[in-house]
Amino acid sequence: LLLQPGAVTQSRTRTVVMSKINESIDKENPKVVTMVKAKEIEGAKAVYCRCWKSGTFPLCDGAHVKHNKETEDNVGPLIVEK
Amino acid sequence: LLLQPGAVTQSRTRTVVMSKINESIDKENPKVVTMVKAKEIEGAKAVYCRCWKSGTFPLCDGAHVKHNKETEDNVGPLIVEK
Repeated sequence: LLLQPGAVTQSRTRTVVMSKINESIDKENPKVVTMVKAKEIEGAKAVYCRCWKSGTFPLCDGAHVKHNKETEDNVGPLIVEK
Repeated sequence: LLLQPGAVTQSRTRTVVMSKINESIDKENPKVVTMVKAKEIEGAKAVYCRCWKSGTFPLCDGAHVKHNKETEDNVGPLIVEK
Protein backbone atom coordinates (compact mmCIF):
# COMPACT_ATOMS: atom_id res chain seq x y z
CA LEU A 1 0.00 0.00 0.00
CA LEU A 2 1.81 3.11 -1.23
CA LEU A 3 0.94 5.99 1.07
CA GLN A 4 1.34 9.55 -0.06
CA PRO A 5 4.48 11.03 1.57
CA GLY A 6 3.35 12.35 4.92
CA ALA A 7 4.61 12.55 8.44
CA VAL A 8 3.53 9.79 10.79
CA THR A 9 3.19 11.07 14.33
CA GLN A 10 2.71 8.89 17.39
CA SER A 11 0.22 10.55 19.72
CA ARG A 12 -0.73 9.11 23.12
CA THR A 13 -3.53 6.96 21.82
CA ARG A 14 -3.16 6.44 18.06
CA THR A 15 -0.90 6.92 15.10
CA VAL A 16 -2.33 9.49 12.69
CA VAL A 17 -1.12 9.58 9.09
CA MET A 18 -1.23 13.20 7.97
CA SER A 19 -1.38 13.44 4.24
CA LYS A 20 -1.58 16.17 1.65
CA ILE A 21 -4.78 18.14 1.18
CA ASN A 22 -3.90 19.45 -2.28
CA GLU A 23 -3.09 16.68 -4.73
CA SER A 24 -2.99 18.55 -8.03
CA ILE A 25 -3.62 22.32 -7.92
CA ASP A 26 -0.68 24.56 -8.92
CA LYS A 27 1.83 22.07 -7.49
CA GLU A 28 4.92 23.91 -8.74
CA ASN A 29 3.89 26.83 -6.53
CA PRO A 30 5.42 26.43 -3.03
CA LYS A 31 2.34 28.01 -1.41
CA VAL A 32 -0.95 28.67 -3.22
CA VAL A 33 -2.30 31.94 -1.81
CA THR A 34 -5.26 33.53 -3.61
CA MET A 35 -6.01 37.28 -3.45
CA VAL A 36 -9.45 38.53 -4.45
CA LYS A 37 -11.01 42.01 -4.43
CA ALA A 38 -14.54 42.01 -3.08
CA LYS A 39 -15.40 44.87 -5.47
CA GLU A 40 -14.52 42.67 -8.44
CA ILE A 41 -16.92 39.87 -7.47
CA GLU A 42 -19.42 39.42 -10.28
CA GLY A 43 -22.99 39.33 -9.05
CA ALA A 44 -24.04 39.24 -5.41
CA LYS A 45 -21.55 36.66 -4.14
CA ALA A 46 -18.70 34.29 -5.00
CA VAL A 47 -18.18 30.74 -3.72
CA TYR A 48 -14.57 29.75 -3.00
CA CYS A 49 -13.23 26.21 -2.80
CA ARG A 50 -11.72 24.95 0.48
CA CYS A 51 -11.33 21.27 -0.44
CA TRP A 52 -8.66 21.75 -3.16
CA LYS A 53 -10.49 19.37 -5.50
CA SER A 54 -12.43 21.93 -7.59
CA GLY A 55 -11.94 21.98 -11.35
CA THR A 56 -12.62 25.72 -11.24
CA PHE A 57 -10.27 26.53 -8.33
CA PRO A 58 -10.18 29.00 -6.58
CA LEU A 59 -13.94 28.91 -7.14
CA CYS A 60 -16.03 26.01 -5.85
CA ASP A 61 -17.54 23.53 -8.33
CA GLY A 62 -19.12 21.18 -5.78
CA ALA A 63 -16.21 18.74 -5.76
CA HIS A 64 -16.39 18.70 -1.93
CA VAL A 65 -19.54 16.55 -2.16
CA LYS A 66 -17.62 13.61 -3.68
CA HIS A 67 -14.67 14.17 -1.32
CA ASN A 68 -16.92 14.21 1.76
CA LYS A 69 -18.71 11.05 0.66
CA GLU A 70 -15.49 9.14 -0.05
CA THR A 71 -13.69 10.14 3.14
CA GLU A 72 -16.51 10.80 5.63
CA ASP A 73 -15.33 14.41 5.80
CA ASN A 74 -17.45 17.57 6.20
CA VAL A 75 -15.65 20.32 4.32
CA GLY A 76 -17.44 23.00 2.38
CA PRO A 77 -16.81 26.33 0.63
CA LEU A 78 -16.38 29.92 1.76
CA ILE A 79 -19.12 32.18 0.37
CA VAL A 80 -18.27 35.88 0.12
CA GLU A 81 -21.21 38.23 -0.28
CA LYS A 82 -20.44 41.54 -1.88
CA LEU B 1 -1.01 1.43 11.69
CA LEU B 2 -4.53 2.84 12.15
CA LEU B 3 -5.44 4.80 9.03
CA GLN B 4 -8.15 7.41 9.16
CA PRO B 5 -11.29 6.03 7.49
CA GLY B 6 -10.94 6.84 3.82
CA ALA B 7 -11.67 5.30 0.47
CA VAL B 8 -8.81 3.44 -1.17
CA THR B 9 -9.02 3.65 -4.94
CA GLN B 10 -6.94 1.64 -7.37
CA SER B 11 -5.81 3.88 -10.24
CA ARG B 12 -3.80 2.60 -13.19
CA THR B 13 -0.44 3.12 -11.63
CA ARG B 14 -0.77 3.43 -7.85
CA THR B 15 -3.14 3.12 -4.94
CA VAL B 16 -3.96 6.52 -3.45
CA VAL B 17 -5.33 6.70 0.08
CA MET B 18 -7.71 9.65 0.15
CA SER B 19 -8.11 10.85 3.69
CA LYS B 20 -9.99 13.57 5.47
CA ILE B 21 -8.88 17.19 5.13
CA ASN B 22 -10.72 18.41 8.23
CA GLU B 23 -9.77 16.49 11.35
CA SER B 24 -11.36 18.60 14.08
CA ILE B 25 -13.32 21.68 12.96
CA ASP B 26 -17.09 21.65 13.65
CA LYS B 27 -17.25 17.88 13.10
CA GLU B 28 -20.89 17.53 14.15
CA ASN B 29 -21.80 19.76 11.22
CA PRO B 30 -22.36 17.60 8.07
CA LYS B 31 -20.90 20.32 5.83
CA VAL B 32 -19.00 23.37 7.10
CA VAL B 33 -19.97 26.26 4.81
CA THR B 34 -18.92 29.77 5.88
CA MET B 35 -20.75 32.90 4.71
CA VAL B 36 -19.05 36.29 5.05
CA LYS B 37 -20.12 39.80 4.03
CA ALA B 38 -17.31 41.77 2.40
CA LYS B 39 -18.72 44.96 3.90
CA GLU B 40 -18.25 43.55 7.40
CA ILE B 41 -14.55 42.85 6.94
CA GLU B 42 -12.62 44.83 9.54
CA GLY B 43 -9.75 46.77 8.04
CA ALA B 44 -8.54 46.47 4.45
CA LYS B 45 -8.65 42.70 4.10
CA ALA B 46 -9.37 39.35 5.76
CA VAL B 47 -7.35 36.14 5.47
CA TYR B 48 -9.37 32.93 5.35
CA CYS B 49 -8.08 29.44 6.17
CA ARG B 50 -8.09 26.74 3.47
CA CYS B 51 -6.10 24.06 5.32
CA TRP B 52 -8.68 23.35 8.04
CA LYS B 53 -5.99 23.40 10.73
CA SER B 54 -6.37 27.01 11.93
CA GLY B 55 -7.11 27.68 15.58
CA THR B 56 -9.00 30.79 14.50
CA PHE B 57 -11.04 29.14 11.72
CA PRO B 58 -12.55 30.42 9.41
CA LEU B 59 -9.69 32.91 9.63
CA CYS B 60 -6.11 31.87 8.91
CA ASP B 61 -3.59 31.67 11.77
CA GLY B 62 -0.64 30.36 9.72
CA ALA B 63 -1.28 26.71 10.59
CA HIS B 64 -0.73 25.85 6.90
CA VAL B 65 3.02 26.39 7.37
CA LYS B 66 3.34 23.41 9.73
CA HIS B 67 0.96 21.31 7.60
CA ASN B 68 2.91 22.03 4.40
CA LYS B 69 6.21 21.20 6.08
CA GLU B 70 4.94 17.90 7.53
CA THR B 71 3.22 16.68 4.38
CA GLU B 72 5.16 18.37 1.54
CA ASP B 73 1.95 20.17 0.60
CA ASN B 74 1.55 23.71 -0.78
CA VAL B 75 -1.77 25.00 0.55
CA GLY B 76 -2.31 28.57 1.58
CA PRO B 77 -5.12 31.00 2.51
CA LEU B 78 -7.67 33.03 0.55
CA ILE B 79 -7.18 36.78 1.07
CA VAL B 80 -10.24 38.96 0.49
CA GLU B 81 -9.57 42.65 0.01
CA LYS B 82 -12.46 44.95 0.81
